[in-house]
Amino acid sequence: MLLEKYRVADPTNFSLSDYSTDDDGGLDKTTVCEQLMPANIKKMRKLQECLYAENRKALLIVLQAMDAAGKDGIIRHVMTGLNPQGTKVTPFKQPSVEELDHDYMWRIHKVIPPRGEIGIFNRSHYEEVIVTRVRNLLPNQMLPPELVDDQVWGNRFRQINSYERYLAENGIYTIKFFLYISKDEQRDRLLARLDEPDKNWKFSVSDIEEREHWDDYHRAYEEMIQATATETAPWYVIPADRKWFARYLVSEIVRDTLENMNLVYPDPSPAVLANMDELRQHLLNN
Amino acid sequence: MLLEKYRVADPTNFSLSDYSTDDDGGLDKTTVCEQLMPANIKKMRKLQECLYAENRKALLIVLQAMDAAGKDGIIRHVMTGLNPQGTKVTPFKQPSVEELDHDYMWRIHKVIPPRGEIGIFNRSHYEEVIVTRVRNLLPNQMLPPELVDDQVWGNRFRQINSYERYLAENGIYTIKFFLYISKDEQRDRLLARLDEPDKNWKFSVSDIEEREHWDDYHRAYEEMIQATATETAPWYVIPADRKWFARYLVSEIVRDTLENMNLVYPDPSPAVLANMDELRQHLLNN
Repeated sequence: MLLEKYRVADPTNFSLSDYSTDDDGGLDKTTVCEQLMPANIKKMRKLQECLYAENRKALLIVLQAMDAAGKDGIIRHVMTGLNPQGTKVTPFKQPSVEELDHDYMWRIHKVIPPRGEIGIFNRSHYEEVIVTRVRNLLPNQMLPPELVDDQVWGNRFRQINSYERYLAENGIYTIKFFLYISKDEQRDRLLARLDEPDKNWKFSVSDIEEREHWDDYHRAYEEMIQATATETAPWYVIPADRKWFARYLVSEIVRDTLENMNLVYPDPSPAVLANMDELRQHLLNN
Repeated sequence: MLLEKYRVADPTNFSLSDYSTDDDGGLDKTTVCEQLMPANIKKMRKLQECLYAENRKALLIVLQAMDAAGKDGIIRHVMTGLNPQGTKVTPFKQPSVEELDHDYMWRIHKVIPPRGEIGIFNRSHYEEVIVTRVRNLLPNQMLPPELVDDQVWGNRFRQINSYERYLAENGIYTIKFFLYISKDEQRDRLLARLDEPDKNWKFSVSDIEEREHWDDYHRAYEEMIQATATETAPWYVIPADRKWFARYLVSEIVRDTLENMNLVYPDPSPAVLANMDELRQHLLNN
């Protein structure tokens, strides 16, 4: 599949209106779910094993989206099947009092994946230029007033780019997914949460409040992607109206990224390498 | 399958010599790997979803064993398939300088699973009555000298029991697995690590040093299980010479434990419950 189509390669001219929410890549659902997807997950697991063994690089996967766009489902369907020893999911919720007392990257950096691992951020530092901006939450962050002016969002974009470049320069690869869902599809999914008892617990009144800011959110997302789609930490816009396609596409991009990380199984330690025969003999005798 | 057989129910009379390393439960490998195991993982995933939704209890799984007994394999084969959002594996390695500067439970408590989640400890606080004891590492821990006497291990057993009782009283269930492998089987697995290039990286010279303390380790494990097999936080002795059986047995016990936790999907919040129709109507109109 042509993954480039979903990667934001020309951020200056990026517009969400050029992207579709219900693309299916010309693929057939049954083939994807029964063959392509399981095969992909198997490949991802193999690659992950090598990432873990090599223990030099890490992969950070960022998921951003409106409510009900399928972030949890992506994790459940794509990342289940990875070895949990080496996979860490962090959902970022409303910051705690302690977190608000720190700079906004503090809680992020604490959970950046260590070498050999895959870190999945369910929401991320990008909330700091999305919900913080759209819902006017900056005052909660107790910044010195002289640092808050009309440059603050532009500054944050630059800070985030610098931070992700720093990560790359330390062996941590970042890929970022924006799950792009239509407003109608979101309504259907929220209604399902109200109507199906096993989904009730997922419904929150705030989902409706957020929905009322739909256009503001999309303006903020657009500007965010324009400013932070870089070579080192690319954004992908994932058509999310069809869950099966969104999941498969994310798995394709993750697999492709892992394949391009040039992972290799490491040599044994010098102490082992220099004494192979002796160690073998010792084991045979004891 | 009769799981009670593997649970240490009478700790006072516990002796490792009453347990087998190569039991197969009278089961057939192909049936287990192709039918029973996948079915079990599916059930575990369903239960985990409810655990996550309910968000009141947590499950802590402790894995202890000699090197090469299959801890990593258990995690890879049993816990892969759980939703990584809600599963956290923590491998406990040699304590860092910062960790040694703290009491021994400090690094443990930091990563106790939060409500709704499954925490898997690859090694655990039990290392503090095993490797610390067998390899005489207590001096590294910088305890005030007057607190170190011949009661220190007995005290630690009591402290651990109190701690696990505290966890239970706060909704965190603990189950503990000792993977019981024969010395011959360990030799074969260590030799395989030397002989197979893709496994080389797992081999460490210290594995051979540890093997030389085989009997001391087993005495320490025996005493540990005698002292810390409780109703609230039971120990299971898992015959580990056959990987497929050990993995299946652990999956059985985890599934059984989750089933006995009486998990239920929660009601929606009162704000949702009281306004179902209104919320539905609002969504339909917007």
